Amino acid sequence: MYRNIKKYSKKAGMPPGTLVHIGKVKTGDILVSLIEYNENIFNETKINNIQQYTPISEKSVINWLNIDGVHNTETIEKIGALYNLHPLTLEDIVNTGQMPKIEEYDNYTFIVLKMLYYNDNNKSIEVEQISICLGNNFVLTFQEEKEKDAFKNVKDRLRLSKGRLRKAGADYLVYSMIDSVVDSYFLILEKIGEKIELLEEQVLNEPSEQVLHQIHALKREMIFLRKTIWPVRDVISTIEKGGSNFILDSMHIYFRDVYDHTIRVIETIETYRDILSGILDIYLSSISNRINAVMKVLTIIATIFMPLTFLAGIYGMNFEYMPELKWKWGYPLILAIMLFIGVTMVIYFKKKDWL
Amino acid sequence: MYRNIKKYSKKAGMPPGTLVHIGKVKTGDILVSLIEYNENIFNETKINNIQQYTPISEKSVINWLNIDGVHNTETIEKIGALYNLHPLTLEDIVNTGQMPKIEEYDNYTFIVLKMLYYNDNNKSIEVEQISICLGNNFVLTFQEEKEKDAFKNVKDRLRLSKGRLRKAGADYLVYSMIDSVVDSYFLILEKIGEKIELLEEQVLNEPSEQVLHQIHALKREMIFLRKTIWPVRDVISTIEKGGSNFILDSMHIYFRDVYDHTIRVIETIETYRDILSGILDIYLSSISNRINAVMKVLTIIATIFMPLTFLAGIYGMNFEYMPELKWKWGYPLILAIMLFIGVTMVIYFKKKDWL
Amino acid sequence: MYRNIKKYSKKAGMPPGTLVHIGKVKTGDILVSLIEYNENIFNETKINNIQQYTPISEKSVINWLNIDGVHNTETIEKIGALYNLHPLTLEDIVNTGQMPKIEEYDNYTFIVLKMLYYNDNNKSIEVEQISICLGNNFVLTFQEEKEKDAFKNVKDRLRLSKGRLRKAGADYLVYSMIDSVVDSYFLILEKIGEKIELLEEQVLNEPSEQVLHQIHALKREMIFLRKTIWPVRDVISTIEKGGSNFILDSMHIYFRDVYDHTIRVIETIETYRDILSGILDIYLSSISNRINAVMKVLTIIATIFMPLTFLAGIYGMNFEYMPELKWKWGYPLILAIMLFIGVTMVIYFKKKDWL
Amino acid sequence: MYRNIKKYSKKAGMPPGTLVHIGKVKTGDILVSLIEYNENIFNETKINNIQQYTPISEKSVINWLNIDGVHNTETIEKIGALYNLHPLTLEDIVNTGQMPKIEEYDNYTFIVLKMLYYNDNNKSIEVEQISICLGNNFVLTFQEEKEKDAFKNVKDRLRLSKGRLRKAGADYLVYSMIDSVVDSYFLILEKIGEKIELLEEQVLNEPSEQVLHQIHALKREMIFLRKTIWPVRDVISTIEKGGSNFILDSMHIYFRDVYDHTIRVIETIETYRDILSGILDIYLSSISNRINAVMKVLTIIATIFMPLTFLAGIYGMNFEYMPELKWKWGYPLILAIMLFIGVTMVIYFKKKDWL
Amino acid sequence: MYRNIKKYSKKAGMPPGTLVHIGKVKTGDILVSLIEYNENIFNETKINNIQQYTPISEKSVINWLNIDGVHNTETIEKIGALYNLHPLTLEDIVNTGQMPKIEEYDNYTFIVLKMLYYNDNNKSIEVEQISICLGNNFVLTFQEEKEKDAFKNVKDRLRLSKGRLRKAGADYLVYSMIDSVVDSYFLILEKIGEKIELLEEQVLNEPSEQVLHQIHALKREMIFLRKTIWPVRDVISTIEKGGSNFILDSMHIYFRDVYDHTIRVIETIETYRDILSGILDIYLSSISNRINAVMKVLTIIATIFMPLTFLAGIYGMNFEYMPELKWKWGYPLILAIMLFIGVTMVIYFKKKDWL
Repeated sequence: MYRNIKKYSKKAGMPPGTLVHIGKVKTGDILVSLIEYNENIFNETKINNIQQYTPISEKSVINWLNIDGVHNTETIEKIGALYNLHPLTLEDIVNTGQMPKIEEYDNYTFIVLKMLYYNDNNKSIEVEQISICLGNNFVLTFQEEKEKDAFKNVKDRLRLSKGRLRKAGADYLVYSMIDSVVDSYFLILEKIGEKIELLEEQVLNEPSEQVLHQIHALKREMIFLRKTIWPVRDVISTIEKGGSNFILDSMHIYFRDVYDHTIRVIETIETYRDILSGILDIYLSSISNRINAVMKVLTIIATIFMPLTFLAGIYGMNFEYMPELKWKWGYPLILAIMLFIGVTMVIYFKKKDWL
Repeated sequence: MYRNIKKYSKKAGMPPGTLVHIGKVKTGDILVSLIEYNENIFNETKINNIQQYTPISEKSVINWLNIDGVHNTETIEKIGALYNLHPLTLEDIVNTGQMPKIEEYDNYTFIVLKMLYYNDNNKSIEVEQISICLGNNFVLTFQEEKEKDAFKNVKDRLRLSKGRLRKAGADYLVYSMIDSVVDSYFLILEKIGEKIELLEEQVLNEPSEQVLHQIHALKREMIFLRKTIWPVRDVISTIEKGGSNFILDSMHIYFRDVYDHTIRVIETIETYRDILSGILDIYLSSISNRINAVMKVLTIIATIFMPLTFLAGIYGMNFEYMPELKWKWGYPLILAIMLFIGVTMVIYFKKKDWL
Repeated sequence: MYRNIKKYSKKAGMPPGTLVHIGKVKTGDILVSLIEYNENIFNETKINNIQQYTPISEKSVINWLNIDGVHNTETIEKIGALYNLHPLTLEDIVNTGQMPKIEEYDNYTFIVLKMLYYNDNNKSIEVEQISICLGNNFVLTFQEEKEKDAFKNVKDRLRLSKGRLRKAGADYLVYSMIDSVVDSYFLILEKIGEKIELLEEQVLNEPSEQVLHQIHALKREMIFLRKTIWPVRDVISTIEKGGSNFILDSMHIYFRDVYDHTIRVIETIETYRDILSGILDIYLSSISNRINAVMKVLTIIATIFMPLTFLAGIYGMNFEYMPELKWKWGYPLILAIMLFIGVTMVIYFKKKDWL
Repeated sequence: MYRNIKKYSKKAGMPPGTLVHIGKVKTGDILVSLIEYNENIFNETKINNIQQYTPISEKSVINWLNIDGVHNTETIEKIGALYNLHPLTLEDIVNTGQMPKIEEYDNYTFIVLKMLYYNDNNKSIEVEQISICLGNNFVLTFQEEKEKDAFKNVKDRLRLSKGRLRKAGADYLVYSMIDSVVDSYFLILEKIGEKIELLEEQVLNEPSEQVLHQIHALKREMIFLRKTIWPVRDVISTIEKGGSNFILDSMHIYFRDVYDHTIRVIETIETYRDILSGILDIYLSSISNRINAVMKVLTIIATIFMPLTFLAGIYGMNFEYMPELKWKWGYPLILAIMLFIGVTMVIYFKKKDWL
Repeated sequence: MYRNIKKYSKKAGMPPGTLVHIGKVKTGDILVSLIEYNENIFNETKINNIQQYTPISEKSVINWLNIDGVHNTETIEKIGALYNLHPLTLEDIVNTGQMPKIEEYDNYTFIVLKMLYYNDNNKSIEVEQISICLGNNFVLTFQEEKEKDAFKNVKDRLRLSKGRLRKAGADYLVYSMIDSVVDSYFLILEKIGEKIELLEEQVLNEPSEQVLHQIHALKREMIFLRKTIWPVRDVISTIEKGGSNFILDSMHIYFRDVYDHTIRVIETIETYRDILSGILDIYLSSISNRINAVMKVLTIIATIFMPLTFLAGIYGMNFEYMPELKWKWGYPLILAIMLFIGVTMVIYFKKKDWL
């Protein structure tokens, strides 16, 4: 959360348009791979030296250049030059603190998205910035993390020649990418849903202070998700309404479908927030209930033993003329009275439902 | 709630357009029945083998093909081919985690709705996804559950030739269907209204922790209902504004009527939410009130007996020179003083309205 | 609240357009009266047999047919036939669970409103559904309750030939009716304002649990009022913007005026809600304050008497070698010490503002 | 607050358009004064008998008729007739429960505003309704209160021939009036700001129940201000967008300026509401904190003295065979043990930060 | 906060358009400096006597007149005359209580912004009003504070001939200025983010009353920031949509970029507010938890020692016939019983998780 802002403030004061990688410090080469395909052809090449690569624009073949890692600004700049990308686009690609957005340029449509992964080890959500440039018959994708591949499914389907993907154009490829990004949100929501379900049980059975911190943590995850996913809706809505020249009108029905999914994601987030508020209410009132229960114990003990102790105190006084003290049955009598008082109190509390 | 999301995440990673049944696992055949009718004709046929069925499109007769169960994707695919349905439509029909929506295709209007049933046994709401395809003189309806028939009323009215239904077109048939779906919401709201009324009484008379859990459960039902019914409003509003080519303009006045009903449903949901918040307030403050009451009992007991016990303690001391101990009336006097103190305290608390 | 929903659910399953009276069960005849007037003429006739009545449409005379009671569907149907009313209109008239709305038909404008009465006996608000059909030179008004006359003022002014009413057209008559309905809201708000004022005093002086229930009751009345009056705003706004063909443009300035009044009513409701929330805050914090006060009493008593009782306990021990017990001034000395401790404590609490 | 509603309900049932003064009952004459001016001329006349006055409409001179007091409906009616004012305008002028609004008539623009004064004696806000009619070369202003002059500044500037005022037209005069009304809001906000600042200090230093009532009172003032000032924004916005035929387009830049001021006022009100909510939070949690503090004192006392008293009780028992009682050092030993227990407890509480 | 309103109220009653410096009282000269530049030229001159300065408008050179300090109204008026600025513009420049806004005049576009600085000494945010007039080839900037230079970066880049800045027009210069203003918001947010992070840790580890006051202070900073930054969004949005004649259409893509940044700032503010609310919840429930903990200690102590003290009291009674007192093992037995009771209680509390 705070980290993102640091990303920005780091650049404050520099002239706009300066290429500075903002994000986790990374080393090692950037991996560049090219996939050329159409209905019949499928070539996958690893490009080791970007300097020697020239994009071939042949109408019948779709070029997909996938770049893994954006920390090497030189390589990014070289690619930018090859494809004639606007300086602001390059700046956005290397600055990984972007919000999802879509921007229309003369020669390409620029889309920024956020891929979400759930890290099962530390139970946290991980984000990867995905930048997509869609032009005539070419698609550039920039993925922040080298270790992760947001588009593994898409590649596999291309390889296996599955579905419409190989027959359709570059816009369908981008649609498949966006679709898998939005699908990742459902996986995240499922994990969070499980956490909330667990929390709900916990708050009813053993409401410890731990619950509160978990509610707080989940609420912050919700805030984070909403902030990340909300603009995705606008991106897809813009496409659906014809905001990109590189996406055919016949594709709009597909984007309407992804749009529906995004709406579902957002609604689920809102629902989760409502449920979390409900859990918080239960937690808070359970504290009050426990205070109440403790108070009752204290009151019962005090109410029973204070009068009894007082009685014992009376006959512990050292007055010379206390006739009861001399009675033979004085002691048993007082014990009986005490027992009676005690039992009466207990019955009274039973009636009041305190016991 | 969480289940719905699981429905989605199950499909994550598959190419879009793959037909996968998402929902409760079911077995057995899908039931397909055909109703052909116009003002004079009414035929009801059970179709056992969808492979041998061909839709006849005759202008003067309306065909209503009702499919009960969507878990057999093969059958659904066959029907889709017969009526030339878009792959995304088929995907939405078998994926029962859809939100209500309307989509306009060249040859039909596709409507998804949610029928709600109240299960009196486990006091819960059950949902059934209803998909409707309205084309020229034909209506396809897909119902998720085989055991339930959302359109029993409509069928009965068709059979009995009651009302405008037989004379009017396929759009009026769809209107009748939507009308009965919206009617089902009123039945649900009535049941929930009864629950809330009960809860209101309970929170005033015997506010136990149970009440809190019931408020929480009802709130979640409200969240669920709102999420389900809200988009229905948009569906009907789209129709009313002429969003479907297969519904005549003269029908808009009827849809305006259903629209009004939906608005009423939504408003009632909001009202119920407000009332539930009020009940929660009462519950929470009743806890505080009980803490207060318990505290008072404790304080009264302590305030009466602490000074008395102290007094008894004084005369329990073993000093040699304590003249009072030798007085003949010392003991009765001290008892009188104690009585006086006790009575004074009680009067004081009565005045302070603590007793 | 819940009752209204029951009204609806009662009709669920019936074909749309069926005339069923929904509302409190009533018996007895429906009263139908006709007022014919223009600048010079004023005739008031009671129509006993609606079967023999035919509306005369003469340009120069305005016909106002007022129907008291809507529980006899036959009579309503007959009137509907006479004036050529749409079946949905008739359905809305007899179903008294409508929300205020305006609907434009070819031959008339249909307006539904809610008249509010304050019943001083049981301190509650009573609702009467008012349906108005405004056509060329005729006005039909349907009032739910036979005992109440929402338009008494209007009739009186017609009789007395007061103001513009007699000279102006049927639209001005309808304007006068709407104006008196909106006026009734001010009367209701005044009554509620008085209740709130009383409640405010009470919560400051003697905040009992009763206050909470009254806040809750008033909040629900607010919810009810808002739900009832909010759509009235839309009705009048529609008229003002020219939504009715039977209301002259020159009348719009008058409807703007009523619109302003409605806005005022709605704002007052919002204000009352805010004030009620404030009163709730005060009530809740007053409970905490009382807990605090009780706690202080307990603490003061315990803090004073516990050390003293301990001291007395010390000298109540039976050790053989306790030199103080033999001192002549031991007893007075210990009493002095106790007094000193007690007084110190009291001073300490005074300083801490606990006393 | 409630009073305003009473103003309205008082009129309920009367025919619309009836002139009834609604507001505080006042007696005495209405003061009418006429100011005629242009760049060179400045005449100020007191008009004693409105019956004999006829407005002269000369192009080169601007007539400003200022009426102080609106309780004499006859005079108002006479003026209305002179300037050909619409009956609804007159009704709004004498009914001082109006909300700020602007209405365009053929021969004039009608503006209602609320002037606010801060009464330093009873620390409350006082309202005066200001109605302005702007026509060709004439301005009518109706002020509710005779004792107060909302436009003193404007008059002074006219007299002194200061600024653009004398050279410009009647629209500039109205602009100056609106400007001084909006300026009055800043004065009110400054006073309230001071109160809030004081309250903030108080809640941190000595949070008494008084604070709560002041928060409540200030919140209600905020509700009142928002309700009063919010529509002013719409009035000025309407003018800025050209909603009046009597205000030149070149004036719009000035009204944009006043509009900015109004926005600032509204934002400040919202800010104050937020701050008040914050103060309420602090107050409420300070109560809890004090309960906590009191509880701690009680617990410390009880935890120290209960075990000690118990120990003393042990050796106060009268068993014959209690060897410790015979020990020579028994008494000092037990005292030492008690001291040790007491000191240990104190150290323990110090460690737990309770002391 | 309150100070700003005082700024306004100070001017109340004056004719609009009067030049009065509103803001912190300052003395000393206003610093005026002129930068003339194009791709090849760069001249920086300090202007000591504004009276002798005449702006030269040469097409090929861009003039940037920077004024540090706005407290000398004479100088401002002189500059206003030189560049033909509207009186309202001058008024806004010297009145430092403005909100960010953009106004279009015939000969220039007027922009008001707020530069924010974080003062590390007193940990507070400082504001400087920045007014910019952008005309044909000239830019005027008015900075409230003499000691601070909001545009140091911009000047440095001009001097070093870095980036597009020297080649582009006056609109690019203004864009660079706005960009550095928005960048300053990120720095502020980073500082506040650090504070919140610290607060989060604190509330979990040692929730003192101090935390509450810090939450309150941060909330007020958030309110202030939102109020300051929100209108900046509108300013930039207006420019992006072509609201200024002095900014080329080709610049819009740059302003879209700054707009995105502003949106990010606003969203971060909202996120911080949500987090602060969460921290408040944790703080409040931690108080309740501590009350609960204290209560438990008290109850444990009382529940253990009250029965024991009572037992001791019994055998401290002075009845003559108490056989136990004579038993040889009476004393050890009673001690054993007491030990047993005590241990049982402790075990019971362990089981109830109170220890």
